[in-house]
Amino acid sequence: MDTHTNLDEQIVLAHGGGGELTRRLIADHFLPKLGNALLEPLTDSAVLDIPAGRLAFTTDAHVIQPLEFPGGDIGRLSICGTVNDLAVVGAVPRAISLAMVIEEGLPLTVLDRIVDSIAAAAREADVLVATGDTKVVERQRGDGMTITTAGIGELRPGVRLDVRRIVEGDAIIVTGRIAEHGLAVMSAREGLTFQTELRSDVAPLNDLIGRLLDSGADVKFMRDPTRGGLAGVLADLAEDTALSVEVREEAIPVSTVARHTAELLGLDVLTVPNEGKIVVVVDQADADHTLAVCRGHPLGRHAAIIGSMKRSQPPLVELLTVSGGRRLVQRPYGEELPRIC
Amino acid sequence: MDTHTNLDEQIVLAHGGGGELTRRLIADHFLPKLGNALLEPLTDSAVLDIPAGRLAFTTDAHVIQPLEFPGGDIGRLSICGTVNDLAVVGAVPRAISLAMVIEEGLPLTVLDRIVDSIAAAAREADVLVATGDTKVVERQRGDGMTITTAGIGELRPGVRLDVRRIVEGDAIIVTGRIAEHGLAVMSAREGLTFQTELRSDVAPLNDLIGRLLDSGADVKFMRDPTRGGLAGVLADLAEDTALSVEVREEAIPVSTVARHTAELLGLDVLTVPNEGKIVVVVDQADADHTLAVCRGHPLGRHAAIIGSMKRSQPPLVELLTVSGGRRLVQRPYGEELPRIC
Repeated sequence: MDTHTNLDEQIVLAHGGGGELTRRLIADHFLPKLGNALLEPLTDSAVLDIPAGRLAFTTDAHVIQPLEFPGGDIGRLSICGTVNDLAVVGAVPRAISLAMVIEEGLPLTVLDRIVDSIAAAAREADVLVATGDTKVVERQRGDGMTITTAGIGELRPGVRLDVRRIVEGDAIIVTGRIAEHGLAVMSAREGLTFQTELRSDVAPLNDLIGRLLDSGADVKFMRDPTRGGLAGVLADLAEDTALSVEVREEAIPVSTVARHTAELLGLDVLTVPNEGKIVVVVDQADADHTLAVCRGHPLGRHAAIIGSMKRSQPPLVELLTVSGGRRLVQRPYGEELPRIC
Repeated sequence: MDTHTNLDEQIVLAHGGGGELTRRLIADHFLPKLGNALLEPLTDSAVLDIPAGRLAFTTDAHVIQPLEFPGGDIGRLSICGTVNDLAVVGAVPRAISLAMVIEEGLPLTVLDRIVDSIAAAAREADVLVATGDTKVVERQRGDGMTITTAGIGELRPGVRLDVRRIVEGDAIIVTGRIAEHGLAVMSAREGLTFQTELRSDVAPLNDLIGRLLDSGADVKFMRDPTRGGLAGVLADLAEDTALSVEVREEAIPVSTVARHTAELLGLDVLTVPNEGKIVVVVDQADADHTLAVCRGHPLGRHAAIIGSMKRSQPPLVELLTVSGGRRLVQRPYGEELPRIC
C-alpha cells in the first residue's frame, strides 16, 4: 500500500479537526456543490422559516458497503432514505442535515463523487442540505465512510395517514418491483459482476407520494420497505392493526433477474431491502384509482395490488403461493443482509 | 478474547438488522429510558407541533475515544453538543434525533450506561429524544460506537445575535475555565490516571444561555469553543468582523490542574476543546452585568472578561501574555487532538 499521504489526494485526520484544513475541505469540496442560503452561513445551526403546523423529524445512519454500487452510492442513499421517511408520514421534506464520519485514507475522488451524488439527489428531491458535520477516524476504524442524515419536513394539511384507520378489505399496493436495492448491493459485494442489469432502486419518493396524497384516494398508510423488506412491513401491518394480511405471490412485482439473483444468493425476495418503493394501504374502493396514479409516475410504473387486509385470528401474514399453497410470512429475525443501508 | 456471543450480553450484527432483534433492543434498552410521546410511535418520522417562526437545525457526529471518560461519556456529549449548538444561535432546543452506529461485540452493559447518560442529559437540558436509528457494523470496523445527533429548536423572538453587529470595544467573555474536556479525555487516553481532579466540563448550556438572553444585555455573539478551542473561536471572530481581538492571558480562566496537564501533554490550553463553555461578545456597557449573570449560574461561576474587540489592520488575535509580551494566536491547522468529540 502506498503510505504517501497527500492532502490533495486523500482524507487525513486533520481534515476532521475543526481547524484550517476542515474549513478548506468544506470550502473546496462541499460548498461548491451543496451550497445554499441555509448552509452557507456555516454557523452552529441553520435557521429556517417555518409556518405554524406539524413538523416531521427523522434520522438514519447509513453504513452500506460497498460505498458505491450499481444504481447508487451512500450519498444518494442518505438523501433518499431521509426524504422517504419524511414523505411516508405525509410530510413535504424541507431540510436535511448531513454528518459524515470518514476513514483516514479515503480518496478525495471518491468523496467528490459521493458529494456530487448527494447534490444530485437533493436537487431531484427538491430538498436543501441545511447543516452538516465532518469527522475523520483513523485507518481501519471507520470502514470508508458512514453518513447520518436527519430531516425535517412540513406535514401536509389534511393528511390522514393512520394505521388505526385500516379496516378489513383495504387494499395493499406495492409501487414497483421489489428487492432490487439489496440484491444489487449484495451482487456487487459478492462480485457477481455478470448481473449487469440489476441496479439499486434508490430514489426519492416524495413526488410520487405527493401525487398519491393529492389523488383524492383514501390512503391510510405508507411505508418504504427498507430493512426487513416487504415481509417486515407486512408483519408490522398485521401487528399494528390486529388484522391479517393476505398477499398473492404472483401479484408481487419481481423482475426475472432479481428472482434469479435471489436464488443464487439464497435470499428471499420478500425480506430483501428496497430503497425506492412504497407499500400503500388504501380503501378498497380507491384501489384501482390509486394503482393508476402510481403507474402514471416514472417511479411507479410497475405498481401492483398485491393483497388485502383480512379479519382472521390470530393476525398473520399469509402468502398465497404461485403453486396454490399458503405460506406464513414472518418478520426477519435479525440481520439478513448486513451493511445494506 | 472470549468469542462466545450472548445476545443478552453484547451487541451482535442482528441487533442492527431492522428485524425482531432490533425491535427487542429498542423495547428493552432504549424505550424504558428515553421513551416519550414523540419517540414512542416508532414511525418513520416523529411529528411535533411547532408555532410559526424561525427554526434552528443542527447536527454533530461524535467519534470520541474512549467512550467513557472522567466527567462524561459519548452519550452525554452527544446530547449536550447538539443542545449547545442550538442554544448559541438563540434557539430553545425542542427535539433531538439519535443515530447510533455500534460495533459488534459492544457489551450491553456499556450501551446501557450510555443510554442512561443520554436520558439524564436530555432531562437536564429539558429536551426530548424524538427519533432514532441503530446500525451495527462488524468487529474492528466501528471502534465501539459513534453517535450522530441532530436537533431542532425554536428561535427566541427578539434575539439579535449577529456577528455583523460587533463593534470596536465590545467585550469578550468566557463563561468558565477552559480546556477541561479535551484534557480529561486525553488524560484518560494516555493513562494519566493520577489526574483525578480533571473532569470534562460537558454540560447543556441552554439554561445559562437563556438567562444571558433574558438579562437585557446586548449580547451580539455566542459560540461554544469545541474543536479548535478558544483560539478557533477568536480566530473566527477576527475573520468574520474584520476587527482584531485582544485578550489578556492572565484573565483567561484555567485551573491549575488543567495548566499542568496541558504542559505534561505538550498542549496549548487555547486550542483544547471545551464542551461546557461559551464565548460571549457583548456591548462594552453591558460587560459587567453580563459577567454577573454568568457568575450567578452554576455553569458560569468562573466566568471572566478576557478581552475586547479592537480596530487594527490586518485583523488578528493578539494575546497579552502574563510576562508582558504579545503573542499572535492562530486557528489550529488541523487535528490537534483526534477523536475528542
